[in-house]
Amino acid sequence: MIKKILIANRGEIAVRIIRACAEMNIRSVAIFSEADRHALHVKRADEAYNIGEEPLEGYLNPQKIVDLAVKTGCDALHPGYGFLSENPELARCCQAAGIRFIGPSPEVIHLMGDKTQARNTMIKAGVPCTPGTDGNLKDLDEALHEAEQVGYPIMLKATSGGGGRGIRRCDNPDELKQNYSRVISEATKAFGSAEVFLEKCILNPCHIEVQILADSHGNVIHLYERDCSIQRRNQKLIEIAPSPQLTEAQRQYIGGLAVRAAQAVGYENAGTIEFLLSDNNFYFMEMNTRVQVEHTITEEITGIDIVREQINIAAGKSLSIKQEDIRFKGYALQFRINAEDPKNNFLPTFGRITHYYAPGGPGVRVDTAIYTGYNIPPYYDSMCLKLVVRALTWEEAINRGSRALDDMRLQGIKTTANYYQEILKHADFRSGRFNTSFVDSHPELVDYSTKRRPEELALAISAAIAAYTGL
Amino acid sequence: MIKKILIANRGEIAVRIIRACAEMNIRSVAIFSEADRHALHVKRADEAYNIGEEPLEGYLNPQKIVDLAVKTGCDALHPGYGFLSENPELARCCQAAGIRFIGPSPEVIHLMGDKTQARNTMIKAGVPCTPGTDGNLKDLDEALHEAEQVGYPIMLKATSGGGGRGIRRCDNPDELKQNYSRVISEATKAFGSAEVFLEKCILNPCHIEVQILADSHGNVIHLYERDCSIQRRNQKLIEIAPSPQLTEAQRQYIGGLAVRAAQAVGYENAGTIEFLLSDNNFYFMEMNTRVQVEHTITEEITGIDIVREQINIAAGKSLSIKQEDIRFKGYALQFRINAEDPKNNFLPTFGRITHYYAPGGPGVRVDTAIYTGYNIPPYYDSMCLKLVVRALTWEEAINRGSRALDDMRLQGIKTTANYYQEILKHADFRSGRFNTSFVDSHPELVDYSTKRRPEELALAISAAIAAYTGL
Repeated sequence: MIKKILIANRGEIAVRIIRACAEMNIRSVAIFSEADRHALHVKRADEAYNIGEEPLEGYLNPQKIVDLAVKTGCDALHPGYGFLSENPELARCCQAAGIRFIGPSPEVIHLMGDKTQARNTMIKAGVPCTPGTDGNLKDLDEALHEAEQVGYPIMLKATSGGGGRGIRRCDNPDELKQNYSRVISEATKAFGSAEVFLEKCILNPCHIEVQILADSHGNVIHLYERDCSIQRRNQKLIEIAPSPQLTEAQRQYIGGLAVRAAQAVGYENAGTIEFLLSDNNFYFMEMNTRVQVEHTITEEITGIDIVREQINIAAGKSLSIKQEDIRFKGYALQFRINAEDPKNNFLPTFGRITHYYAPGGPGVRVDTAIYTGYNIPPYYDSMCLKLVVRALTWEEAINRGSRALDDMRLQGIKTTANYYQEILKHADFRSGRFNTSFVDSHPELVDYSTKRRPEELALAISAAIAAYTGL
Repeated sequence: MIKKILIANRGEIAVRIIRACAEMNIRSVAIFSEADRHALHVKRADEAYNIGEEPLEGYLNPQKIVDLAVKTGCDALHPGYGFLSENPELARCCQAAGIRFIGPSPEVIHLMGDKTQARNTMIKAGVPCTPGTDGNLKDLDEALHEAEQVGYPIMLKATSGGGGRGIRRCDNPDELKQNYSRVISEATKAFGSAEVFLEKCILNPCHIEVQILADSHGNVIHLYERDCSIQRRNQKLIEIAPSPQLTEAQRQYIGGLAVRAAQAVGYENAGTIEFLLSDNNFYFMEMNTRVQVEHTITEEITGIDIVREQINIAAGKSLSIKQEDIRFKGYALQFRINAEDPKNNFLPTFGRITHYYAPGGPGVRVDTAIYTGYNIPPYYDSMCLKLVVRALTWEEAINRGSRALDDMRLQGIKTTANYYQEILKHADFRSGRFNTSFVDSHPELVDYSTKRRPEELALAISAAIAAYTGL
């Protein structure tokens, strides 16, 4: 049994984990930087500790975090996503301190975090990968040589990368020359490693990923797939479960591949195997050894609480479900509401939220850490809210998404919400045929009207006066 | 096809219907009294019209509402629940004006609204009813005579009643004498009819009701049952789907009974058959010929959008699902968050909401028309929010309910939220064994602490300042 969990994260995922703890009768301990003093995860956790003056330092210091976990009597630690979630050092520190790390072993994190080792492991396990280098590149000369073998266009990738960062497409030797030092510099800065490799670039693929759960008793199951093809610069914007683009045979095939991949590395806890789909071929892209931002949509279609399962797995319990008992129903869409201005090249727009009202009603779920009056700090991720909708059919899910986006009030900052409305109207999206080139192919979708409804202003003013005079 | 719907209601159900319209690309028309000028349904509808100076008058005037529907080019009208939803006159006015009434025919509303006629119809259809009078009571003498035949305790009921009003228990002739004129007076005031009848009182039954859907092509299905045993003075407080107290055989049996009952009256649209369950016997109580407050929990476990189905049925479409395709998953609970003070005999506590923050995360749904700064008017129902949770198991659903209640912030008025936390902790509730006497049997549950967490006050103040200075 786990009794007290330190949550080594912030924002909506910290709140998500606090909620799971509350439902499982587990005490939650939050950490926060000075910039996060008024963040929702601090207010909602059972205990909260300032972990540093600097905005990032504390969230990125494995030993300091684990020391705090020990000091506060925690018996487990949840890393969330981002930050140290895929840093084997955090898992290692936990192990050394006798704290259960809610995720796979440090060895597996290391293995899957090293993209060339991961590739080789998958190839050995019979999971198809894109053609590419066997290991890391020694230098630019080797890169140019390997690129000729594989054939342009190629993707130059940071070996320790992930989440769409440290990755560049090169269409010819000149571009490879230009990008080589750039990716190395990016990788060094973002992941503390200068190692890079290259792969054949799969043109305009679909991004399909499979959620898996694996316990410490050898049980591995998959919870079907998500379609994350709607992305911009490798950052996912709208995620969908299940993919409206797969046949049932394809669905069974990649589900099986994902389970095989997880078994091949002796995986434990929740994880995601990402594939590219092109011309009916699937290629292993990477494995994310943590809970994913878009785990929500899998929860919506299957009913399974993935964070709860993660905690139970870490506690040594067996999975609560068997593969044959997992049925999914309908479609779920997640909209990442980012504090960005689509009309200004998606520039982050931090600041104070003057009015926020959650959308509600049937089939609507919101995961967020914002509230009216909250000041979004400029130091972190620009994602400020996850709006998730589900419905029995694809068309109903789209229409519900549009309704819920319209329902939501989020004022004081610019967000991607209106932009998503345009995507939902597009015939290609509605027909369920799209790939990762969708966003770039439709620059016209940022030309929406930003006319504010008069009643919105009246509501914001009356809420402000009410809140002020009501105290 | 229906293109524009007038919503003859207010509050959360009006917002619920507006949302369904938005998702179906149907224009919505709201009506409002002067007291409701700042209500959310007015802000969210595509059009909104003031229907009267008086708080109630406009919502209760069938002809005026239908005239407005015609004038504004509506082709359909949704009555919601309460108000005129079970008044055959509204359905009749619609019929006369060529407006589709989203509900059954005036004849069926009339038949099921007359409790003695409904009883007799059900008895003829082979649906078990409690022993009672064949028709209405002529006078007190007849009442006393019939009560002796049936045996005390008896329930004295308004023939036109419903929703738990116009109903009194009498344990002996003296109580019957006392209550007779009272119920008549209540019935006259609330339903415009002085007719009453009596039935044997089933002691401490469970309240089990079945949701049905019937289209104009003769298809009738049921969406399984809800357990509404947690009630106070015949007002439901917490509703559950499915009932944790039924065997699978009982579930199939009452599902079949409900379909038979609907078929017997040629029912069309959504409806609910309410049963009392005592000693493994089910007794027909009444049929509600409209959407119910607690339709939400059936939506959560089946995925079916009941309001959408209602609109499609009224448009002449066939049901989108067959009985054999309806599968329910897990458990859903609805908490009626009422603006009432449990510590003061559940006295309504209207006024200004100084701070409201919706609960969120997995398995949480909120249907409400309140917002920060909203002033709850004293003229209407005290229910201000429906908090619905769902999870795969009974225990998880309870724990999620507790978490979501804790998650919610609703300040400025007293509500029943804390009281529900106490119910969720009770061993009888947790074990899934309870009946309609639960609330009365546990008066100690109102003795909870109302200590306000210090961070809540800080949050309320900072939100107020933020909202004020942010404009």
